[in-house]
Amino acid sequence: MMMDSPLTMPQMIKRAEMLFSKKEVISRTDKGISRLTYREIAERTRRLASSLEKLGVRRGDKVGTLAWNHHRHLEAYFAIPCSGAVIHTINIRLAPQQISYIINHAEDKVLLLDPDIIPILESCRDEIQGVKAFIIMTDEDTLPETTLSPVYHYEKLIADGDPDYVYPDDIPEQAPAGMCYTSATTGNPKGVVYTHRSIFLHSLALGLADSVALSERDVAMPVVPMFHVNAWGMPFAGAWFGTTQVLPGPNFTPKILIELIEQEKVTFSAGVPTIWLGVLKELETGKYDVSSLRGILCGGAPAPKEMIRRYEQKYQIPFIHGYGMTETSPIVTISKLKSYQEQLPYEERLEIRSKQGLIVPGIEMKVVSAKGEAAWDGREMGELALRGPWIASEYYQDDRSKETFKDGWLYTGDVVTVDGEGFLKIVDRTKDIIKSGGEWISSVDLENALMAHEAVFEAAVVAVPHKKWQERPVACVVLKENASVTEEELLDFLRPQFAKWWLPDKILFLNEIPKTSVGKFLKRALREEVQKVLEAHEGLAAGE
Amino acid sequence: MMMDSPLTMPQMIKRAEMLFSKKEVISRTDKGISRLTYREIAERTRRLASSLEKLGVRRGDKVGTLAWNHHRHLEAYFAIPCSGAVIHTINIRLAPQQISYIINHAEDKVLLLDPDIIPILESCRDEIQGVKAFIIMTDEDTLPETTLSPVYHYEKLIADGDPDYVYPDDIPEQAPAGMCYTSATTGNPKGVVYTHRSIFLHSLALGLADSVALSERDVAMPVVPMFHVNAWGMPFAGAWFGTTQVLPGPNFTPKILIELIEQEKVTFSAGVPTIWLGVLKELETGKYDVSSLRGILCGGAPAPKEMIRRYEQKYQIPFIHGYGMTETSPIVTISKLKSYQEQLPYEERLEIRSKQGLIVPGIEMKVVSAKGEAAWDGREMGELALRGPWIASEYYQDDRSKETFKDGWLYTGDVVTVDGEGFLKIVDRTKDIIKSGGEWISSVDLENALMAHEAVFEAAVVAVPHKKWQERPVACVVLKENASVTEEELLDFLRPQFAKWWLPDKILFLNEIPKTSVGKFLKRALREEVQKVLEAHEGLAAGE
Repeated sequence: MMMDSPLTMPQMIKRAEMLFSKKEVISRTDKGISRLTYREIAERTRRLASSLEKLGVRRGDKVGTLAWNHHRHLEAYFAIPCSGAVIHTINIRLAPQQISYIINHAEDKVLLLDPDIIPILESCRDEIQGVKAFIIMTDEDTLPETTLSPVYHYEKLIADGDPDYVYPDDIPEQAPAGMCYTSATTGNPKGVVYTHRSIFLHSLALGLADSVALSERDVAMPVVPMFHVNAWGMPFAGAWFGTTQVLPGPNFTPKILIELIEQEKVTFSAGVPTIWLGVLKELETGKYDVSSLRGILCGGAPAPKEMIRRYEQKYQIPFIHGYGMTETSPIVTISKLKSYQEQLPYEERLEIRSKQGLIVPGIEMKVVSAKGEAAWDGREMGELALRGPWIASEYYQDDRSKETFKDGWLYTGDVVTVDGEGFLKIVDRTKDIIKSGGEWISSVDLENALMAHEAVFEAAVVAVPHKKWQERPVACVVLKENASVTEEELLDFLRPQFAKWWLPDKILFLNEIPKTSVGKFLKRALREEVQKVLEAHEGLAAGE
Repeated sequence: MMMDSPLTMPQMIKRAEMLFSKKEVISRTDKGISRLTYREIAERTRRLASSLEKLGVRRGDKVGTLAWNHHRHLEAYFAIPCSGAVIHTINIRLAPQQISYIINHAEDKVLLLDPDIIPILESCRDEIQGVKAFIIMTDEDTLPETTLSPVYHYEKLIADGDPDYVYPDDIPEQAPAGMCYTSATTGNPKGVVYTHRSIFLHSLALGLADSVALSERDVAMPVVPMFHVNAWGMPFAGAWFGTTQVLPGPNFTPKILIELIEQEKVTFSAGVPTIWLGVLKELETGKYDVSSLRGILCGGAPAPKEMIRRYEQKYQIPFIHGYGMTETSPIVTISKLKSYQEQLPYEERLEIRSKQGLIVPGIEMKVVSAKGEAAWDGREMGELALRGPWIASEYYQDDRSKETFKDGWLYTGDVVTVDGEGFLKIVDRTKDIIKSGGEWISSVDLENALMAHEAVFEAAVVAVPHKKWQERPVACVVLKENASVTEEELLDFLRPQFAKWWLPDKILFLNEIPKTSVGKFLKRALREEVQKVLEAHEGLAAGE
């Protein structure tokens, strides 16, 4: 038979050191640019692992990080799991009470943090009594003033660490290696635990020619934070494959990103649409050379088609749309054309590539509609369910697991259609979809159509209860300054684009639409507001 | 934690059907070209699986194949393991007594065979009593005359099969999926058992951008037989990724291969050096367009540097050197330049790419010399040892396993050097290396140097026992017709190229060098012959 060699992480960093000792990890810091080779990174990683052990970190212990994208964070990415502990990357943008909740829930024993995070942790130090050590990842020679205690200097631990530390060779592949919490619609964040096996396999998926094809030739810059689903796995796969990595450090701006691309000849980058919108705006000033880029991976939210067009037509930078979530490590789909689709006119190709794409090898999907499994016709909607070796099977010690994980599948909460070629398109969230008379209406499709009207600044569509149809769509519209349009004019504008029963029963004109801190519509609040308005005015909310 | 979704094969063929239903498998047959889509292949695969079950094939049973590269063989590649049985691919070029040995040793219950194999099996039918059914994979509507019994028509089984057969979903990933026997230096062939997990992971390795980057865009033609280490895994990975496959069928010639490349716009092919030497000779006639090829994968034996140069410089076809063996699934190394090596002059690049290359992600290696682990200096020699999830842990029910598998490593029997960049180069077989005074001398290096002399047709170097130095090299040389050279002239020719102690103690001139049926030097026989000659003539063999 075959060897039962475990799919574990120590061999990933060992390969970086053995085969790519000269390749670099380039980090932007407050003080400038640092360059370390994988030989240096690998040694520092062993030193860190030994120092953490001396601090009392044992197999299975959680070590939290609160940090930007930089080489020290990358060292922690390998030192912690390779020594048998678990790296818990914490979103530094969360509120202090959420941060203390997840530190306690994960039972983090040690925290590694950037200097700018100190105030946040000082503010909640009393709530996180389980933390036995704070390690400051600073560029300065001395520690900053802080009330945190006990506190250690990262570079001192590196200097005192054992360069010849040997990673244990008996870590089972199913052992936990990492953790990341994802925000919940209601209640506290929910934890996802990654295993050595899941990270190993997900890294291979990132290297596939048909996926993002991450390779030794790449100079890869993950803009997506290392506290967001492991920067989509790029730091792990990049080290394994010998990819040059460019880590943009703290508080970067679009201008800083573009300058890094220019100076370091970045070939591949990854981030959410808002990042690329900002970069595009800066690029349009026209003073930059970004011709080294072979591709940009974009996910986290659907990218506007016009942005994709602009990158490709003006800058010749292929835009690769992908889909995933914290629970999926995250790569699930990648939107690349099939070879025979390359012949299509650009508009059709753009339309396909604006979808979320095809599932990558290793992942299985089904699309669950009201009637069973949705047809692959590009129209029937259903909730996307996933399974595979880098898909979570549960939330970490959380009763809410049973709402999401059923019969061996992860129910994503995303409503999708699948076209005849198997390209998946996200059309809504299950909680936002409008269920009207046994059919589903996509709030997102209606919103996009409304926002294409010249008078409309933004639009949100929500479901309101209806006696006969169960739910009906109602649109809320904010007009552009000095613009005007009537409800009937907007409905006329929508009519040619949708089936009659899709049209909103009512269009309300608002001054603003309530949003979350990251700019997403707060549909729950909006729905309540709409219902109040409707009840007050005409009783439509009750379906009369 | 993460789902424990097994790494098994049914999802590979399901993905081909779901996402690449229009892509084709193109087979050359005696009657012309057949084209089947993955939708058709997948349905035929299910029909075959159900018919095999009806014939009594159960979980874990071995089903042998004796067949060329064609779509029916590909169907067997998935139908058999996906239903829980084990596909045992049998080398049709072996002698009948070897074929009957491995059929009996593997306990094959059913055999699928091409019509031209019938005479071989008829000749050993009495020895393979365990075989309960013979299935003929013929293009004809009726079965050929045969004494084999009971005999079935493959297409009849497909027609009678269940198109809605459902593969079991409870196959463990460590379950056996395939088998292949490899020839031994002495004694019977030795069996290697592949698992679902090993085939799944090896297929991912084939898709890596830094490996062979097999992709949906490729039109891949495995020339390496499907009875040789699963055609290096290409049929499995190709189906999973939606690659168009071109299977060259029975008794192909270089001309037939080139015509297939031309007509089907093959982008990628794979085979042993002798194939590519033949193709090169045919290409030199200059009437072909092979510009569709993006690469050729070559392994099984080191490819001559001059052949690589010719393909690249005259035909602009990148030649990718790889290394592996039956025991390793087979991909272990791939020789692609690192990005910073691209700047080197062509001769240096060619020198690097003529080596066997870098280990692919997932595989670990060590090089065991007389003194421990060999230095990575491009000079110190040692035996290559490997481990990883697609490396065998034993030979199937074979006492010889303990000679090859030790301490969790596969000892390959190949002597290699590793340069400072980690590129591995095969310099000899352990049984042929000459151990002189605690140092190793490569017989292959001396042979290549001798064969570069204009008077030498071929040369073989063997070890003879020596009292003081343990072993010393002796060269056997066959001269070209009408050429002449003296022993001293040849030694003078070698002198500038090697350390003094590398030079052969004696050069013998022979009329021919004993060879195996596939043209390799029979060094064991040669060594005996040399010793007789030396004992008779001068007693040098005894080191006096």
